Amino acid sequence: MRKIYDLIIVGAGPAGITSAIYARRQNLKTLVITKDFGGQIGRKAVDIENYPGFKKIKGPELINRFKEHLKASNAEIKIGQVDKITKENNIFCVSTLEEKFFSKAVILASGADPRPLEVPGEKEFIGKGVSYCAICDGPIFRNKTVAVIGGGNAGFESAIFLSNYAKKIYILEYSSQVSADEVNQETVQKTGKAEIITNAKVKEIKGDNLVNALVYEDLKTKEEKILKVDGVFVEIGSQPATSYAKGLVDFNERDEIKVEFETCETKTPGLFAVGDLNVGRFKQIITACGEGAKAALAAYNYIKKVYKE
Amino acid sequence: MRKIYDLIIVGAGPAGITSAIYARRQNLKTLVITKDFGGQIGRKAVDIENYPGFKKIKGPELINRFKEHLKASNAEIKIGQVDKITKENNIFCVSTLEEKFFSKAVILASGADPRPLEVPGEKEFIGKGVSYCAICDGPIFRNKTVAVIGGGNAGFESAIFLSNYAKKIYILEYSSQVSADEVNQETVQKTGKAEIITNAKVKEIKGDNLVNALVYEDLKTKEEKILKVDGVFVEIGSQPATSYAKGLVDFNERDEIKVEFETCETKTPGLFAVGDLNVGRFKQIITACGEGAKAALAAYNYIKKVYKE
Repeated sequence: MRKIYDLIIVGAGPAGITSAIYARRQNLKTLVITKDFGGQIGRKAVDIENYPGFKKIKGPELINRFKEHLKASNAEIKIGQVDKITKENNIFCVSTLEEKFFSKAVILASGADPRPLEVPGEKEFIGKGVSYCAICDGPIFRNKTVAVIGGGNAGFESAIFLSNYAKKIYILEYSSQVSADEVNQETVQKTGKAEIITNAKVKEIKGDNLVNALVYEDLKTKEEKILKVDGVFVEIGSQPATSYAKGLVDFNERDEIKVEFETCETKTPGLFAVGDLNVGRFKQIITACGEGAKAALAAYNYIKKVYKE
Repeated sequence: MRKIYDLIIVGAGPAGITSAIYARRQNLKTLVITKDFGGQIGRKAVDIENYPGFKKIKGPELINRFKEHLKASNAEIKIGQVDKITKENNIFCVSTLEEKFFSKAVILASGADPRPLEVPGEKEFIGKGVSYCAICDGPIFRNKTVAVIGGGNAGFESAIFLSNYAKKIYILEYSSQVSADEVNQETVQKTGKAEIITNAKVKEIKGDNLVNALVYEDLKTKEEKILKVDGVFVEIGSQPATSYAKGLVDFNERDEIKVEFETCETKTPGLFAVGDLNVGRFKQIITACGEGAKAALAAYNYIKKVYKE
């Protein structure tokens, strides 16, 4: 007979791990299916100063603490990529490329991937000057000139990190003003290495073997301009990787999953979506954790109600 | 001229402290007015195992970490009890008994107080056997018999703590089944000291100088029964202390403040309510923190919009 879990959690970033901790506190038979651990913390965050309880902590250290907490919960963990989810007779079937798993409830917490610029040269120069991760690739650009695309927190945090290596950093923002935290804006100013260019629409990334220039349009003057750069860091947000849930959930125009915010339940009863992949406006580590806890408790209530346990 | 803060936060439990951390990240001129620090963690939690990042941490240690984080944020802190809040011309006036403070936005995070039983003998024997805090008063009851009123997590966690001291613990629950986490139920069973009585309506607390008995009605048989006990720990939930916000917010039947869950904004623009005092069903440390972050970011957006800064 097929094994039926109480709960399957897809993803093990802050949201998914918190869901697992809470689900196990309710003795739910819980399986976590994930590609990796820590979600976007691993790719983005350097010094984290806004996770309450830690005045300042390095991203990898916080991930390790989350991982240890997950292990202590005794949830089952399976490394894999979810391909499809269906629901039939109140049982969810979660498929990876290799296997099928069954459960009474599911929490989607697989986060989001970097959003690409979709301009000529971008794909071609990935790993040759184009990067989506300042922490991973920043140190290569010692004494070089780089551009960060995106004037939000992610862009400014990348610029702050890159200022340890690069000699000059352009920050290009499409709209007429940047949206990063004011603390981040001040810190970037203090590096003395950054130049912020607003109303800038990136048109092309150019190079030889490696990136050597960025072409953008000044949206005010309609002029096309060229910056000599050795690296381009793309920080224009993220796109949730949620196509596997199609049919069971509704999306907004950014492919984020619609939820009812008190419980994070989707339009499908027993199916929840927490963290970066739902429509919530505020995507923080601590908000992802809070949502993870709420969804796990709501999933427990759902299972008790539907299965009269 | 009167000084106008960007944001006043009422209360410094997990929700209020997280709001302050996030508000200061946005450079909001922030004042925290609070009676104390840590909120219900201080009164309730023993070993906390469900705050992600700490597999197990003592309540007072987590409070200290939150307090340190709050101090590092450089928010102004004022010890005091808020008495009234009004709004006029988009400026909030927050009054304590001694002073008035003004701000563009307000986050209510003053938590909740223990809900009393409201039976004869309860008030009379407070401090003489009646307690709302097992951690504070439990050690007095070494080798004694105690009753815990309330079959939720708070009641079971109190019973677990009390099992270190008391020789016998009754847990009385009004409804036909307890609602504590299954992990907590198992742990209580393992103490071998606890007896759970459901369908029990407490009628009276009796004693001489000190408590010596508890009278309850068995709601199934309608019989009145007496338990010989030396202490009564009341854990039937909490009631938000929010009368100071009357007129600006709507309440549900439990005096909890109605909010829109994505931002925790109340019906008054610029006024937010986070943590134990709002209508949210899931009242956890981590959910309070998540709400605190969301409200602070939403308050920042509100101020930018209304004041065109």
